[in-house]
Amino acid sequence: MADPNRARSARRWSMLRPSADAISEADFALSELPLAEPGAGEVLLQSLYISLDPYLARSMRTWAGEGRGWEQGLVNGRVISRVLNSRDARFAPGDIVVGVGHWQDRQIADAAGLSLVDPLLAPITTAVGILGRSGITAWVGIHLADPRPGQTVLVSGATGPVGSVAAQLALRRGCRVIGIAGGPEKCAYARDELGLAGCVNYRDEDYVRQITELSEGAIDLLFENVGAPSLDPVLGAMAPHGRIMLCGLVAHYESDAAISLRNFKQLLYRRITLSGFVTADHPELFAPALAELGALVRDGRLKYSETIYEGLEHAPAHYIAMLHGSGVGKRLIRVAE
Amino acid sequence: MADPNRARSARRWSMLRPSADAISEADFALSELPLAEPGAGEVLLQSLYISLDPYLARSMRTWAGEGRGWEQGLVNGRVISRVLNSRDARFAPGDIVVGVGHWQDRQIADAAGLSLVDPLLAPITTAVGILGRSGITAWVGIHLADPRPGQTVLVSGATGPVGSVAAQLALRRGCRVIGIAGGPEKCAYARDELGLAGCVNYRDEDYVRQITELSEGAIDLLFENVGAPSLDPVLGAMAPHGRIMLCGLVAHYESDAAISLRNFKQLLYRRITLSGFVTADHPELFAPALAELGALVRDGRLKYSETIYEGLEHAPAHYIAMLHGSGVGKRLIRVAE
Repeated sequence: MADPNRARSARRWSMLRPSADAISEADFALSELPLAEPGAGEVLLQSLYISLDPYLARSMRTWAGEGRGWEQGLVNGRVISRVLNSRDARFAPGDIVVGVGHWQDRQIADAAGLSLVDPLLAPITTAVGILGRSGITAWVGIHLADPRPGQTVLVSGATGPVGSVAAQLALRRGCRVIGIAGGPEKCAYARDELGLAGCVNYRDEDYVRQITELSEGAIDLLFENVGAPSLDPVLGAMAPHGRIMLCGLVAHYESDAAISLRNFKQLLYRRITLSGFVTADHPELFAPALAELGALVRDGRLKYSETIYEGLEHAPAHYIAMLHGSGVGKRLIRVAE
Repeated sequence: MADPNRARSARRWSMLRPSADAISEADFALSELPLAEPGAGEVLLQSLYISLDPYLARSMRTWAGEGRGWEQGLVNGRVISRVLNSRDARFAPGDIVVGVGHWQDRQIADAAGLSLVDPLLAPITTAVGILGRSGITAWVGIHLADPRPGQTVLVSGATGPVGSVAAQLALRRGCRVIGIAGGPEKCAYARDELGLAGCVNYRDEDYVRQITELSEGAIDLLFENVGAPSLDPVLGAMAPHGRIMLCGLVAHYESDAAISLRNFKQLLYRRITLSGFVTADHPELFAPALAELGALVRDGRLKYSETIYEGLEHAPAHYIAMLHGSGVGKRLIRVAE
């Protein structure tokens, strides 16, 4: 454990400019700053893991979003930390906590925004993955869509931290689940480890035909994490009165370009309902989601994977690579042990 | 009334080829054909009015759709007719009926597909308009969306036979209703006759700004009849958790080109639910729809307008002009008195 007396400064990533269409490492700068002592109700934190989440790309381009200081170019994300020093009765030194924080190695945080992580329950990294926002998002989306046994569910981004959980939750409901993922290894993982009925590599030339064949042109539910590259072909293979849960648009966060869909008219012709949803709108579902996910993870009935990159100094590079498909499952930066 | 003995032949529009992207008069041919006598369960009909409906454009391009014979190039649409001769107990000569029929001046029809029109209730043209499929479609869409008093509703194609009814039904629910229409005359009609709070002419250069200002960026319900030209700017002015009823896509029926939306991501960011709907899916709603629409039309509480073109021989030309915005309200071809 770090000595609180040594925690007088911190390294921090901030942005030099809002990113243009493509997010670039040159948009970020790593600097050293002095740290004050925590005030009343605050804690001093040592970052352990920083969560790399696609939705942050929007904030990197708009300098607005969840957390404080985006308007000054500070980067916020979900961070798992160890408490070094506490001026709040809820946390003691040594506690592991999770919350929205800056991309820096140590920081002062408002205790009210933090949640305690139980390291005996599961690896602490799951607090931003399957037992954190990613898993809850999958649970909320499947809960809202409520697919029935025997229905065909297609999940794009099927090996990601949200998609892989959504796919498994749909399997547990007795659905026939098909995935879309990037590359043969990810597809093998989706089939062999997650148990999907099939997985289409969107980099295959004939992936549209594969989707149609595997789904028999009758997808009841699309759990969409990606955008046009999966949405467009799947619109052509939806069942009448099918449902689309629009969870993420990772293919489009880096651009303001128009999104073009050849099959858009199928929303009308097939009488499809598409719903954009955001987990933060459903706080009443967090507890039931975590209760179910926790029980399933504890006894091994839900699988998850992680890709852990080393070192705060590589955060922007790994973040950008992740947006473009690098890594499997939950992607994290390890800042300290 | 025509003499049944003279009804031995008919003039009929059929298609020479499925239309390419743009529907052209050259795709249609008018020919003369002999008419048989009606068999058991059939009637001989004199067409009075042919309904010009945008959704037919899809069938003109695919040679498939509602009605018989599309696959041979026969054109089907809603037709109001007078019974000349009947071999079915339900109908007698002189009766006015409505059903799906060919674009021809006289035809033999299966009596089972026809409904009796009461000429004392309202002008018979309303049987394909406000008291027919157009009005029922508007009623079903508003019924399904169920907007609340005080909500802001935007209707595109606001002076059309569906949009004008949807707008008035939303007004009757206590909503603030804004329209989009093509041209200052249509907008004046929407405001002054229909009573809308405002109407934006989509041909104005600054129409996107006008939509945002009029709606105060908080549209709770979009009733969409047109497609990208209205959908895209309105997506940027929707309220969080807003609803889109996708009723028609008249701007896109003539093309298989991709539909491009700059604001597509707002479906996610604003947590919007978009539902494509088709009236034929809701037969249980036809009777309550007609009961309410009939009562409102009878005592003048619902307004409607019609544009009536003369002569079967001009049907394709007027159909194509209608697709491009010609005429107001319900567009019909008068075939005979």
